[in-house]
Amino acid sequence: MSDSHKTGPLKIAVAGLGTVGAGVLKLLERQADLIEQRCGRRIEVVAVSARSRGKDRGVDLSTAEWYDDPVALAAHPGVDVVVELIGGSEGPAKETVELALERGRHVVTANKALLAHHGTALAAKAEAAGLAIGFEAAVAGGIPIIKGLREGLAGNRVSEVHGILNGTCNYILTEMRTTGRDFADVLADAQKLGYAEADPSFDIDGVDAAHKLAILTSVAFGTPVDFKSVHVEGIRHVSAVDFDYADALGYRIKLLGIARRTDHGIEQRVHPCMVPKAAPIAAVDGVFNAVIAQGDFVDRVLFVGRGAGEGPTASAVVADLIDIARGRSTPTFGVPAAQLSEAQPSPMEARRGSYYVRLMVVDRPGVIADVAAAMRDQNVSMEQFLQRGRAPGEAVPVVLTTHDTEEAAMQRALATIADKESVVEPPRMIRIEQF
Amino acid sequence: MSDSHKTGPLKIAVAGLGTVGAGVLKLLERQADLIEQRCGRRIEVVAVSARSRGKDRGVDLSTAEWYDDPVALAAHPGVDVVVELIGGSEGPAKETVELALERGRHVVTANKALLAHHGTALAAKAEAAGLAIGFEAAVAGGIPIIKGLREGLAGNRVSEVHGILNGTCNYILTEMRTTGRDFADVLADAQKLGYAEADPSFDIDGVDAAHKLAILTSVAFGTPVDFKSVHVEGIRHVSAVDFDYADALGYRIKLLGIARRTDHGIEQRVHPCMVPKAAPIAAVDGVFNAVIAQGDFVDRVLFVGRGAGEGPTASAVVADLIDIARGRSTPTFGVPAAQLSEAQPSPMEARRGSYYVRLMVVDRPGVIADVAAAMRDQNVSMEQFLQRGRAPGEAVPVVLTTHDTEEAAMQRALATIADKESVVEPPRMIRIEQF
Repeated sequence: MSDSHKTGPLKIAVAGLGTVGAGVLKLLERQADLIEQRCGRRIEVVAVSARSRGKDRGVDLSTAEWYDDPVALAAHPGVDVVVELIGGSEGPAKETVELALERGRHVVTANKALLAHHGTALAAKAEAAGLAIGFEAAVAGGIPIIKGLREGLAGNRVSEVHGILNGTCNYILTEMRTTGRDFADVLADAQKLGYAEADPSFDIDGVDAAHKLAILTSVAFGTPVDFKSVHVEGIRHVSAVDFDYADALGYRIKLLGIARRTDHGIEQRVHPCMVPKAAPIAAVDGVFNAVIAQGDFVDRVLFVGRGAGEGPTASAVVADLIDIARGRSTPTFGVPAAQLSEAQPSPMEARRGSYYVRLMVVDRPGVIADVAAAMRDQNVSMEQFLQRGRAPGEAVPVVLTTHDTEEAAMQRALATIADKESVVEPPRMIRIEQF
Repeated sequence: MSDSHKTGPLKIAVAGLGTVGAGVLKLLERQADLIEQRCGRRIEVVAVSARSRGKDRGVDLSTAEWYDDPVALAAHPGVDVVVELIGGSEGPAKETVELALERGRHVVTANKALLAHHGTALAAKAEAAGLAIGFEAAVAGGIPIIKGLREGLAGNRVSEVHGILNGTCNYILTEMRTTGRDFADVLADAQKLGYAEADPSFDIDGVDAAHKLAILTSVAFGTPVDFKSVHVEGIRHVSAVDFDYADALGYRIKLLGIARRTDHGIEQRVHPCMVPKAAPIAAVDGVFNAVIAQGDFVDRVLFVGRGAGEGPTASAVVADLIDIARGRSTPTFGVPAAQLSEAQPSPMEARRGSYYVRLMVVDRPGVIADVAAAMRDQNVSMEQFLQRGRAPGEAVPVVLTTHDTEEAAMQRALATIADKESVVEPPRMIRIEQF
């Protein structure tokens, strides 16, 4: 560690004063005495940077030096820590972090995209200089999951970590289930309520969850961050009827990030899942996030909390600041960057498990026999078949579930089924996870 | 900190080789390389102590020096950390820990009784010497709740912490609910299965949960450990019929530890509670533990995991050892012992909330009127009243719930009711908590 573990105040510079940045300043202001007790020193904001200076953020910025340029802020003299809350994997966020490390400042960031894309390189850079990168806020908001995994479960070999990593998707799925409304309808509402962005793609297409999963995987397994190997599917194709069928079959639908050590290597995937209603994660609704880790000694540990928002994210950022103020250090991903062990990614085709499939088919004799034959030809064993209601000659939804099978076989069966003339829409598939 | 943060191995002495002690040695042996990666150094067991030397514990003790006397072990030269896994608030456990601190060794312990009774004094002693006391294993087994609260939520003012802190009680209550069997019957089974001790009183009378709660309270609120102020009730009086009524009323029955800042001071209580079925804690069944913390910025965070057992407890002990090996230090209860702020305990009589009351009354006209009058005389407002089945002239159970009221008023009403001739058994009351 550098010289940060001393008795003077910890001097920080904050780049980015959006919701989270303002929250961090409010927290530091409101809990100054508490934080001093817990750190043994004060935390002092000496410089800030944001796009618009005039905006009222409800915090006193008069004692901090203002920078229009975050990269210039990273070079502000006498700063111990640069807090990067700009966001984005490239551009000013990356430049700010890199310059901060070059100048010998610790970094605290909420930027999952940055770490998903450049985490390993940044960790190596930081560790070579004896600096910390705190990123508790980058995954699952206020839940202390990075600390929990990296330190709390440090005695365990972790075999699996999975969770609800995107509050926007979980909110949408929860609303769809409880109101019976359609995806587009609920999304529009979520946008009005501020739970979804104007351009919601990052969230609903699973990219945000995939960024977080790639980081979690690295912390859990001690491997370099490998975002490009994450299989990503979002929730656009989850339909209102899927919730009815899921309910009838005893499941809930969740967008999960799952990382698992398998015989084929490390599996990383984000996609909608059906999980048994009794699984603890099935009960985590609305904007809440949850992470479950499976360690060889501790068994399963579940963490639940708010995955976003001003207060929870500020709480995580400040926890990292307090660690730095106290001189508590840990290698970025739990083991030193140079010791992260490259691991083979397991291809999605190797996934084993069961499947839920929804088809729109013309309601006439022989159609199901065709579907069943396509499954049989790929050695996929059907477990259940459901057709609710009849409409001879018209398109009706039919649903089936399979026994455990391989993704590759399932995909081949689905391709054959999609080609059938009586199958009038692309088949929709949701993987079933038996936690 | 003392000289423990160096590059040689961390040398530890383990006092007590029961289930947990053996688990710790197994973990250290099996994950030696992993731990070295995470600590930057090895952890070496240089001395051990237990009552019987001959016993096969499934671990290699050949390289560790044997002590019959744990107190002598604490004085073994060249030890960095003494791991105390003997148990008990007095006697050898206390002497071992005290001598270890006097000799400049860090302490790691799973001993909740010791910390509940002597935590503040031991913390002061440790901190004066620049030593750590790690006690993650003392509360909620494998769940990293001490780290989560003390570091992960360090930026928050915590207003409440509550949880399922005793796996034995939770197992018994879960079995009673799912099988409809009686307390005594389920307890006998739990004893056979090893989930309950031959003398189960410590668990089922709530003392163990109260020890853990007193520690959690101190960490959450930065107050000296105040075990004597914990109001403690166990689960002996929870009856099979209570589960039927709870179910009908929309509740689950859990033994909870609850610590809350109120206008009257700090409330600490352990007793059976009815919690709404939809509350996340209601779904935590069997031997699992759960802790929920409410922070002003992070809002609610829930932690769930195994509260006892060889693996989970060893996981927690080793996490503390890794912290010490890495030189990560935190004041014992989050803020330095000298700065723990004395807080007024809130008397149990000041508890506000609603109540479930079960009475055995003679089934004849006027009895309910008497009960209702006793409640009215204390300004206790009844919400529901349930009498299932009739047996004129004989004793029948009747159940009622109240609106929010004060414990003191409720107790007076219950005392009056108990005195009625037609009330043939002591009234049983379970507090309702609306989380």
